[in-house]
Amino acid sequence: MRTVITGSGCFIPANIKKNNSFVTHLFYDENRQLIQHSAEDIISKFQQITGIAERRYADTSMNASCMAVEAAKQAIADAGIDAESIDQLIVAHNFGDVHSNSIQPDTVPSIASRVKHRLGIRNPSCVAYDLLFGCPGWLQGLIQADAYTRSGMAKTCLVIGTEALSRVTDPYDRDSMIYSDGAGAVVTQMSDNSGIIGSHSASFAGDDIAFISMGKSNYTNGNGYTNYLKMQGRKVYEFALRHVPLAIKACLDKCNIHLSAVKKIFIHQANEKMDEAIVNRLLKLYNISDVPQDIMPMNIQLLGNSSVATIPTLYNMVSKGLFHNHALHPHDIIVFASVGAGMNINAVCYEV
Amino acid sequence: MRTVITGSGCFIPANIKKNNSFVTHLFYDENRQLIQHSAEDIISKFQQITGIAERRYADTSMNASCMAVEAAKQAIADAGIDAESIDQLIVAHNFGDVHSNSIQPDTVPSIASRVKHRLGIRNPSCVAYDLLFGCPGWLQGLIQADAYTRSGMAKTCLVIGTEALSRVTDPYDRDSMIYSDGAGAVVTQMSDNSGIIGSHSASFAGDDIAFISMGKSNYTNGNGYTNYLKMQGRKVYEFALRHVPLAIKACLDKCNIHLSAVKKIFIHQANEKMDEAIVNRLLKLYNISDVPQDIMPMNIQLLGNSSVATIPTLYNMVSKGLFHNHALHPHDIIVFASVGAGMNINAVCYEV
Repeated sequence: MRTVITGSGCFIPANIKKNNSFVTHLFYDENRQLIQHSAEDIISKFQQITGIAERRYADTSMNASCMAVEAAKQAIADAGIDAESIDQLIVAHNFGDVHSNSIQPDTVPSIASRVKHRLGIRNPSCVAYDLLFGCPGWLQGLIQADAYTRSGMAKTCLVIGTEALSRVTDPYDRDSMIYSDGAGAVVTQMSDNSGIIGSHSASFAGDDIAFISMGKSNYTNGNGYTNYLKMQGRKVYEFALRHVPLAIKACLDKCNIHLSAVKKIFIHQANEKMDEAIVNRLLKLYNISDVPQDIMPMNIQLLGNSSVATIPTLYNMVSKGLFHNHALHPHDIIVFASVGAGMNINAVCYEV
Repeated sequence: MRTVITGSGCFIPANIKKNNSFVTHLFYDENRQLIQHSAEDIISKFQQITGIAERRYADTSMNASCMAVEAAKQAIADAGIDAESIDQLIVAHNFGDVHSNSIQPDTVPSIASRVKHRLGIRNPSCVAYDLLFGCPGWLQGLIQADAYTRSGMAKTCLVIGTEALSRVTDPYDRDSMIYSDGAGAVVTQMSDNSGIIGSHSASFAGDDIAFISMGKSNYTNGNGYTNYLKMQGRKVYEFALRHVPLAIKACLDKCNIHLSAVKKIFIHQANEKMDEAIVNRLLKLYNISDVPQDIMPMNIQLLGNSSVATIPTLYNMVSKGLFHNHALHPHDIIVFASVGAGMNINAVCYEV
């Protein structure tokens, strides 16, 4: 018996924030020194490295929970289930609802409770909780749903990833251009012949714990008590390159599946160059020299990095044939993989 | 095969905050009107209803994650396990780390990652995540640990509840006197003859979603953008009285166990009168007229309500014979039960 995705959905905010909208910004480095390049040069270099040309910001009237509800409605409709039949409603995020006029996260009641309320689900046996696991939170929610399904605790799960990173970014930090807002969701049910074959999760929490964390603004006159999302980009890159390919291989090994059988890799949309380097390193582990065509769909160029929302959003677009020439076919073997704050890594091997 | 608690620990901050330390406070009601009673009268009535005479506040140098580490160290030592053998490290909380000079919660990286880091656990297969489920979060973590154990995903789990509610309270609100700081933890392993027999979880998220939430200060001149923990006390009381006894009975029914076989009920230390009323209502469901002696250990009088930390703290004290005349004996049947923001309710039936 396996856990299979029977429906998916996503919410992509309508507000497009293009790179050129940052030309008026003054950027400071982590030592609080003004960066001595023009904003145009900084943005151009940023786009070269990350691949990001534009990103999406939620309306000021919307929060992470609002976006989650929209993604969830799509996933429920796509699965064709009665929402009252959901046993576990899992919402992955990192900041909860951050209102546009405040940087104080709001997580009481939980985002899952808010989503359940707004979906109008009345069945008390639909257990709603939030999961915090850095960017890999949505994929970890899928792994937890699989555990509940296999232990008999759940038949139907709703797994959502939602984040409004635009609310927690330091505008004086170049990395603020990475972050985006969005939500993705899937419904999982039981299946005899498709779904999750195996998974692998890893939490490091060594020196790497400081690679993604909350910290002061790069601008010296910033409010000393307010913290923003901070990333040591180079260290994250090196960490991901060292560990993510091994985690994907560990997952495939558990499943007795060779990489050559994998049709698509849905990797967390963190940074275009980093994701490409991860897949190249993975191929090297198998002595495969040519990158298989279309193995890695990427939407980071237009959607940025919306943390927990990137993988379910990308999966939703590809599985519904809404994304370029990418398509999924019955019994395709695919891999989901993510890396993020903690540092945490996970991978799931899945049969369509 | 069952999931059994093999070690426990808690952290109770040394700073005692007695009721009389609130006599200098001006208390306002939810309509932002000054309450026209002396602080002495307000405090006296508060103590009558809640039973709380004093509570504990963490040192300004400590956070929720610091308290969690201390509780975890005790639980690991008590279980006699190698911390590297932990498969899932689950931290329940609602606010993450709130620094004493700011009300901005900090949850990146997750509290679980911070705890793992400070415990010095190097094994990447020890998966560390945070769980948000209101006050019943710790008990839900225990239920999740049970699912992982039964699904083969974990053999050893560390389940922690930690909260510093003193950092998110509105000093102008009488309810601020309820809240306390602390952490509790247990280690779970596999067993053939004791442990969790069954569990029951419920998320409501109807109109009750507003009963415990974040809101403005009761004081009119408060910062309009800062939110504090707010509770509609009477509504929470009525909700808990209606639903918690039924949830405990549903749990016992699943386990084919009659209430008369239950030796102790470890209930979330929310409010003395409410908890007593819940147990009385539960006894009525079984037509039991006399309250069994010592069935409900309570430490709220001296420790206040520390949210997710109350049950593991109480269990730790009782199971180690550190709490009055309460004791646990092999094969005693006990019940854990909690209620909180969401509103969420859960119960676990357990054989010592």
